[in-house]
Parts: sequence; structure tokens; C-alpha cells
Amino acid sequence: MDLSRLIRVARGDAEADVVFVNARIVNTFTGEIEEGNVAVAEGRVAGIGDYTEARETVDVAGRYLAPGLIDGHFHLESTYLHVDQFARAVVPRGTLAAVTDLHEVTNVAGLEGMRYIMECGRRIPMDLFFMAPSCVPATDMETSGATLGPEDIRRALRWKGVLGLGELMNFPGVIGGDEHVLDKVRAAHGRPRDGHAPHVRGKALNAYLSPIIGSDHESTEYDEGLEKLRRGMRLMIREGSSEKNLEELLPLVNDGNYHRCMLVVDDRSALDVLREGDVDAVVRKAIRLGLDPVRAIQMATLNVAEYFRLEGLGGIAPGYYANMLVLRDLDTLDIAEAYYRGELVARDGQAMFRSSLPSNEWIKRTVNVREFDVESLSLAAGTSETFPVIEIVPGQIVTRRRDERPSRSNGSIVADPDRDLLKLVVVERHKATGNIGVGLVGGFGLRRGALATSVAHDSHNIVVVGVDDSDIYAAVKEVERNQGGLCVVAGGEVLASLPLPIAGLLSPEPLEMVAAKLEELERLARELGCSVNSPFSVLSFLALPVIPELKLTDMGLVDVMAGRLLERV
Amino acid sequence: MDLSRLIRVARGDAEADVVFVNARIVNTFTGEIEEGNVAVAEGRVAGIGDYTEARETVDVAGRYLAPGLIDGHFHLESTYLHVDQFARAVVPRGTLAAVTDLHEVTNVAGLEGMRYIMECGRRIPMDLFFMAPSCVPATDMETSGATLGPEDIRRALRWKGVLGLGELMNFPGVIGGDEHVLDKVRAAHGRPRDGHAPHVRGKALNAYLSPIIGSDHESTEYDEGLEKLRRGMRLMIREGSSEKNLEELLPLVNDGNYHRCMLVVDDRSALDVLREGDVDAVVRKAIRLGLDPVRAIQMATLNVAEYFRLEGLGGIAPGYYANMLVLRDLDTLDIAEAYYRGELVARDGQAMFRSSLPSNEWIKRTVNVREFDVESLSLAAGTSETFPVIEIVPGQIVTRRRDERPSRSNGSIVADPDRDLLKLVVVERHKATGNIGVGLVGGFGLRRGALATSVAHDSHNIVVVGVDDSDIYAAVKEVERNQGGLCVVAGGEVLASLPLPIAGLLSPEPLEMVAAKLEELERLARELGCSVNSPFSVLSFLALPVIPELKLTDMGLVDVMAGRLLERV
Repeated sequence: MDLSRLIRVARGDAEADVVFVNARIVNTFTGEIEEGNVAVAEGRVAGIGDYTEARETVDVAGRYLAPGLIDGHFHLESTYLHVDQFARAVVPRGTLAAVTDLHEVTNVAGLEGMRYIMECGRRIPMDLFFMAPSCVPATDMETSGATLGPEDIRRALRWKGVLGLGELMNFPGVIGGDEHVLDKVRAAHGRPRDGHAPHVRGKALNAYLSPIIGSDHESTEYDEGLEKLRRGMRLMIREGSSEKNLEELLPLVNDGNYHRCMLVVDDRSALDVLREGDVDAVVRKAIRLGLDPVRAIQMATLNVAEYFRLEGLGGIAPGYYANMLVLRDLDTLDIAEAYYRGELVARDGQAMFRSSLPSNEWIKRTVNVREFDVESLSLAAGTSETFPVIEIVPGQIVTRRRDERPSRSNGSIVADPDRDLLKLVVVERHKATGNIGVGLVGGFGLRRGALATSVAHDSHNIVVVGVDDSDIYAAVKEVERNQGGLCVVAGGEVLASLPLPIAGLLSPEPLEMVAAKLEELERLARELGCSVNSPFSVLSFLALPVIPELKLTDMGLVDVMAGRLLERV
Repeated sequence: MDLSRLIRVARGDAEADVVFVNARIVNTFTGEIEEGNVAVAEGRVAGIGDYTEARETVDVAGRYLAPGLIDGHFHLESTYLHVDQFARAVVPRGTLAAVTDLHEVTNVAGLEGMRYIMECGRRIPMDLFFMAPSCVPATDMETSGATLGPEDIRRALRWKGVLGLGELMNFPGVIGGDEHVLDKVRAAHGRPRDGHAPHVRGKALNAYLSPIIGSDHESTEYDEGLEKLRRGMRLMIREGSSEKNLEELLPLVNDGNYHRCMLVVDDRSALDVLREGDVDAVVRKAIRLGLDPVRAIQMATLNVAEYFRLEGLGGIAPGYYANMLVLRDLDTLDIAEAYYRGELVARDGQAMFRSSLPSNEWIKRTVNVREFDVESLSLAAGTSETFPVIEIVPGQIVTRRRDERPSRSNGSIVADPDRDLLKLVVVERHKATGNIGVGLVGGFGLRRGALATSVAHDSHNIVVVGVDDSDIYAAVKEVERNQGGLCVVAGGEVLASLPLPIAGLLSPEPLEMVAAKLEELERLARELGCSVNSPFSVLSFLALPVIPELKLTDMGLVDVMAGRLLERV
């Protein structure tokens, strides 16, 4: 950046690269709408005023000019998209910067995986920032591809673009004073540290905040959100694909705290981004619910930049990056154009740039399953009459434990579709240990076939739900063959699959293709009898042993509240 | 800090060090008043809630508990006090943290001097933070003790406690694109960078802000302050000993921008701190002028901490430093007690701690004047009939140039008290160059004798105003003998002096003694006919060649607007 040229343009002594004339500028610093022209040079805002001399003039024609949106908390992996396709999806939605915690990629491929995504992130017309994942792996009751300790956190924090410590999900560890967890927090001294503390209140919250945790995005209730603000946390109000907290939390935003509140998406699927939008959809909904539009924009721009200390982002001001949106209307946040560093990158919902990543480029082979046969998937009957079943709670990621008398065949426990009891299998895929966890799940409704995915929080082994072992076996083999992904199998045949060969989590394919394939997979699952919405998403949480009550990892069934593996009787 | 003990106390599983019960807590995060108890351990707030178990209980008895005040911009040197005595003055006033730009000490003694003050600052019960001085020296038309370049800025920024770049006073340099100045700004990339841009508006302001300057404390007009807020600067509203901007600027503070405004003192004398207060006086006055008391406190606590990224300061919340004030009343900010790291450090305006600095400790000999005789102070008549006189503008630091026919005697220009034309002399004192600048000043009113000071912005040579050369000579000798300081001389006799042997700027003596001596010096000056208020302060700005219109340095008279030394005709 040629600072001295920027200064000359600002002074009016040199021609700008672009000048935006006749704009109503959304001033996020003061909450006002200002009228004026904006001169841009060197990818930065040179000045606001009566500038006219420029190589290019954009007539905003009385429409609004707002800073590019910044999403303060999201997980790239929830979209199944690689960063270039992610950018194609969200840039036309106005998201020109975002902060991601790559804890899915990192659980699979460690800091090397994070580094790879970061490098790809430099080739897209938006600013991606990263948090160092704090909880990899989530527990020691599962096999992950990588483990991050305090030294890894320190190493990642030295990389340009890594802002602080990612969401500290292990709140019981902090509250319990676990020194290993505290060491990771200490490694991020002086940096933003994101929280994750659902329902943590009162003295437990005070304890969690002892090392000063700057934000929380897990509040679901008014009082909870207010308490967190009062205790010094910034409130990230989340509106994702499954978790929707805006209606509950927006009423607590007022003159006294709005500058400490943000709007974020956390987890949003590619389908939802395409249909409804990204963080722009959250801003729009907040306005619809009664929030002042400028304030809603502040909560997805400057407030985020201030919290994460993103110099030059979040506002339209001299020296700031020229990341700007032309809005036809403020109340509907109708985005006509998006400019990144002063260059047009999207118009009328369409990206004006192409993918710049080589399509055959990914980290490395990450799906390594030890040879096994279909008999390995059988579940020995044991001596007890009953068996613990994982019961899905519709619309939530918690499960319930229900003890049932299962059907048996030849000394093995088998699925019983008539009672909606299906086999659930987790096959270790990082280190070819040969670990296979087998259990029963209720609530899927599948009448035949199997569904498999290598996206299985947080260790991302292969998780499969199915009626018979041969379909389950075929599904695992298909995921292995694709080096990750989703598939639907029935009658020994693969009906459809979505390969996710990048860390077994992301697709190199275009956005539209990923979305279409996901729709097809969901349709096929429904045809096989599946009765839950977003079955692959539901499946992906059944192996997450930090969410109550009963879960299955490659090591076996986990009693989450007791924090231990169940012993078979 | 034992974090795991802090967590245990927060959980309620261990006894606190102190618990403050029955408090009305000023919540700077949400702008509310909360009722509750505050547990403290390890010098930090463990929690807010129903804590009672502690080694010590402080019954706040329904009074208010507020976070310690933070002054975001002040110059230690304006008090003439060393840091321990400064702390004795301001801690009882509630200032428990402050950010100082030591550009006076640094002009004299370079980074070594700054380092010394920083080390002393660790021994006082308040948190001192520092900015790396950006403009040392102010110009090349004077001799300073030190020069700081970009490498020095980088070095200082590596020191713990140095937050960013000090006020960028050389705004013409930035606007003009001076690469030497821009290099210093670049050295502070990613750090807070304070501005100083009096009356800079429009395109010049845009140009000044090109490298993103975070704050300004020089706004004196409503529109100017608003424009700076709109362009992304934080507004520091200053209320010092001489510059008072609160009444003008407070009306612009509203719901949309208050969180980007701060209250600061900039320059406040020890006398004013004793009589009226420090930043507490500014908060009090803001409340008196109609600002909500909690908001006024936010502007001198959390807002400052957020701008400077002072983790754990500015609020009362878990993990935050237990720097707190017990207030009898909110509207009058009546401070009953001050606690630093949970320990009582002041009560009813009295410091509860002693000086901890050895009284004979200071940097080094800094007043080095080359031998000279009284004849060196004469001002040769020259060929021109008139001579340019520096005319003081009452209450301002700008001067006017007035060309007069001076009185002459034996081929020299001499003082003429009847016409209020006095001799002004600047004697170089850093490098014993023998440089002596001589000129005439109007407006002091002195009838006889001389006043001298080694505090002379920004290079701090010895500046003297006087009626006859022998008194001027004696005054210089007295300052030299004291290794810096102020004095009043008449009839060849030293009537009084205040030695400032620390860099020629600060006294090692107690606050009360410094204040008493300053009062005596001012009284004696009045007795000699001096008609200006704070004559030593006025004198200290007559050698500052970045403030219009005519100034005198050790190199001679400076035409400030032309930016050059005057040539004698």
C-alpha cells in the first residue's frame, strides 16, 4: 500500500482510483446517515467529502453505502464448502470479513490443516480471520486425527490472521480448574478469547470468566444473555441453521449495551446461505423484529471489528479498507453491489469473481480405515436383557438414554425398524486403529438402507446409521473410497454420495453442485423412511461426547454426564 | 496470580481475600447499577453475587462501588512530580490507571529516561501505561537532549506497558506525506496511535487519518469534535489546567457515540490536582453539566480501557483487577475509599501508602551549560530600526509577532519595563553547545528581576525572562546549580527556587512541598510586577517552535508559520 499516494488523494492533490458519488453513507461510528462522496485509493478509503477526480466513478444515486458485513463467529465446515466456494456464496450476501474457528478441520488434520485453509483464504475477495481452536480433541474418549496443546496454541497465535483463542467449549474444565485447559487459556494472554457457555450462570459463570473470556454465543435466554453482558462478556447473538436465538435475545439490546452485541451465524449450511442468506439474513431479521437498521448494521460490522481489534474494518473512514456495500434499501438490507478493497466483487446476488483454487488441491489422504469385514459390525448380545439406546430429541443436539430389550439374531443384537431401533456405527478413520463403536439409535425412522458421513463432531470419524450390517458396511466403504463425504446406501447399492475429500469435511465442488447433491441425499433418505430433518446433520452430532446424554464414539458408548465410556455387561 | 485459586473462590469453594458487601455496583458494561456483593482474590474480582466468606469484609453499606478511573491522556511532567508523589496526588482522587506520553522526559533523556520512569511506575499502587513519543524532537530548529527514530519507536513498543504511538503532533508532517514521520507511524502498526490535530478538518483531516489515527484530544469546537468522531477517531474530551474543552464538547455526546468518547486531563498542575482534582474533577464537571453519572464514569473507565485494549481494567467483572472506588454519592463523585488490587490505598482524599522511591535516585546529570559570561546575553542592535517582539496572548500558548523600535544602550538592545519589553533568553543545556538565543518578549509585566525554568517545551532548554542581564545570568546559574528547576531572581539574589533535578523536569520532593514552593514562586513573580497567570507555564511554551507565531529557541527566533529561523538584519 502506497501510503503517501493515499495521503495525496485524501488531500485532493491526486486522482482517486474510484469515487462513489451521491451516497448516503451509513456511519457506524456515530450511528448516523451522512451524505457525501467517498474517494478510494490503494484499496482504502482516502476520504469522505466533495471528491470527484477519479479513474472511475460509481454513482450511488442516493442509495446507501455501508461497510461490508463481518461475521464474528462461524464454522466454515458447516457449509461443506471450500473457502473459494464459500466466498462465492457469502460475498454476494455482503459478508466481506469473517472470523472462523476451524476446529473441525483441526481435529482431523491439526495445525497443518488450518494452515492450508488459511492459505487458501488469502485468495478470495473477503477477509478471513481465524481463532486458534481451544478444544482439540473434545475428550479422550474418542480417537481424533490431531491433538492441540498450549504450545500449538502459541504457535498458531504467531501466524498473521490468527486473532485469539477459539470458543472455549470445555467450560467444565475451566470451572473445575483443569490445569491443562487453563494452560491453553494462558497461551492466549492478551488476545481475544471466545467463550461457549450454554446455560452457565451465577457462580459457575464467574468461575468460567476468571481468566477473562471476552464473548459468548451460546446464550439462549434473555436473562442469561443479560447476565453475560453484565459480567463483561460481549454478546454474540446467534442465528444459524439449527440454533436460532435472535427473537429471544434481541429485546435485551438497548442504548446501554448495543455496542457490546454482535450478530453471528455460528453454523449455517450452504443451502440456507443460498436460500436465506448469511449474516445479512440475521441483520435483516433483526430489523424486521424492530431494531434500528443502522444499529443492526453496527452489530455486524464495527462492533465485531472492535472486539476482535480488526484495524481498518467495520466502518467507512479514511484509511479503512474500502470494503463497502451499495444498498438499495436500508430496512430490507437489499444489497445491490459489494466492493472489496474498492473493486466490484458482487452484483445483484451474483459473485463477480471465479474460484482461484486448483480443484485438485487438498491437504492429504485423511480417511484411513483398517481393513474390516461385515462381521465386525455385529453387536454381541451380552448377558443383560436390556441395552442402552441413544434417543434423538427432535430439533436438538442433546440425546436421551433409553434402555430397551433389543431384537436378537444368532447371538447378536440387531436393528428393528418396526420399533425404530437402528444400528449406529462409528468407524475410526484417522489412524487405522480398527476401532469400531457399535450401538443402537432411536428416532431416525429409516425403514431400510444406511446413511453415512465422515462429518461427525468433533473427531470426525465415520458415523453410520442403518438397518442391516451389509448396507452399513457398503456405506463405510463408499465414504472411504471418496476419502470422506456423505452417502445413502440401500440393497447393497450406493444411491448417491457427496464426496468431501478435503479433510473428509469439505468439497472442492461448486456451491450449486454441493447444494444440489445435499438436497438429493436428503430426498433419498426420506424415501428410505427417514423422518428427521437434516438427517446428516443429526447424524454428525451423535458422536459428540460433550453433549448430553448418551453418545457413541469409535471407543464405544459414552455416558456424557458421568464423563466415561459405558462398560458392557 | 493463582488462577486456580481465583476460580475456586469464584465457585464459592474457597474463602475470598476481601468481600465487599451491600454494594450498589456501577456496571460500566451495561450502564446499570446492580446490587450485590463482590468477592476479591488474588487482586482480582472473583465474582459478583451472594459471596460472604472472606478473610476481610468491607461493608459498602449501600454506597456505590465503581471501577477505578483511567485517564487516557496525560503528561506526568506537567505536575513537576515524580511518579510516587504523582500517585499520592491522584490515587485519592480515584485515578487508578493512566496513560502517559513522556515526551518531555524523552526529549531530555531519550528512551533511557522513559525506561527509568517506567520502572519507578511499577512501585506505585496504580497502573501507569505509556505511549512511545512520536515527535522527539519537535523540530530541527532547536537542540534537544535526544532524538527518536522509527527504530526507537519499535524498541519502546516491545516493552511491557508501552501501548502504542504517542500523540502525533506533527500533523503537517503526516498531511504533507513526510516519509520520516510516516515511518514512525508504520513502526506502530497494529497498535493504538494517538492523534493531535487542532483545527484540522475536511480533506486535511482525511489525509491526516490515512494511516488510521485512533484518537484526538485537541478538539476545541463542537463541529470539529463531531467531524473527528464521524471519521472514526475516538474523542478524548480534555479538561486540563489551561485547556478546557468540556463545556464546548459535552453537548455532542449522545447514545450513538458516547462509547467512543473519553474524559482526559492532558496537562494538569499539581496545584490543580490538589485543589480541584484529577480526571475525577472532569467526571464531576461533566455530571454537573448534565451527563448521566454512570455514562460519565464509563467515559473515564471502560471506554478508555477498550480503546487502549487494557485487559482487566475499566469494569467490575470476574477476572478483572480489583481496582475499585467506594463512592458516597454518584452525582458528586464523592470518593470515600480507593482499592487497588483489592487493597485499601486511599481514604477520604488521603493516600494510605508511602513513597517507595529512594529520594536520591534520578537518571543522570542533564543540565550541562557551557561556561559563558553575562556579555553573551547582550543583544546586538544590528542595522534595522525595528526588532521582532514575541507578544504573549493571555490564556493561550500561541504568540503574536510585533515589530518594535527597541531601547538601546551601548550598541545593544535592552529591556524596557516601562513599555513591557523584556529580554527573553534560551540557554542550551543538553550538550553544552554554548548556544544562546536572545530576543524580546511583551506581556509579562515584570518590573525588575528575572524568572527562569528548565521546563521549556519540547526541548527543555533553560528559558529566562528578565529585566537586566545580570539577573538573567544569575537565574541561569541557579537552574544549572540545581540541575534544573524554576527560580525567581532580583537584585542579583535568588529569592526562591524549586529544583527539578530529575531530567530538569521533575522534583523528588513531596507533593505538598512542590505545591507550596510553586505558590511562593508565583507570589514572588507577582511582587516583581509579573502580570500573567502561571508565569512559569507561560514561559515554558515560549520556546516551542511548533506553536505559532514567533518563538525563541537556543538557535534563535523562529518564524513558526514559515518554519524557519529568522535571520538578523
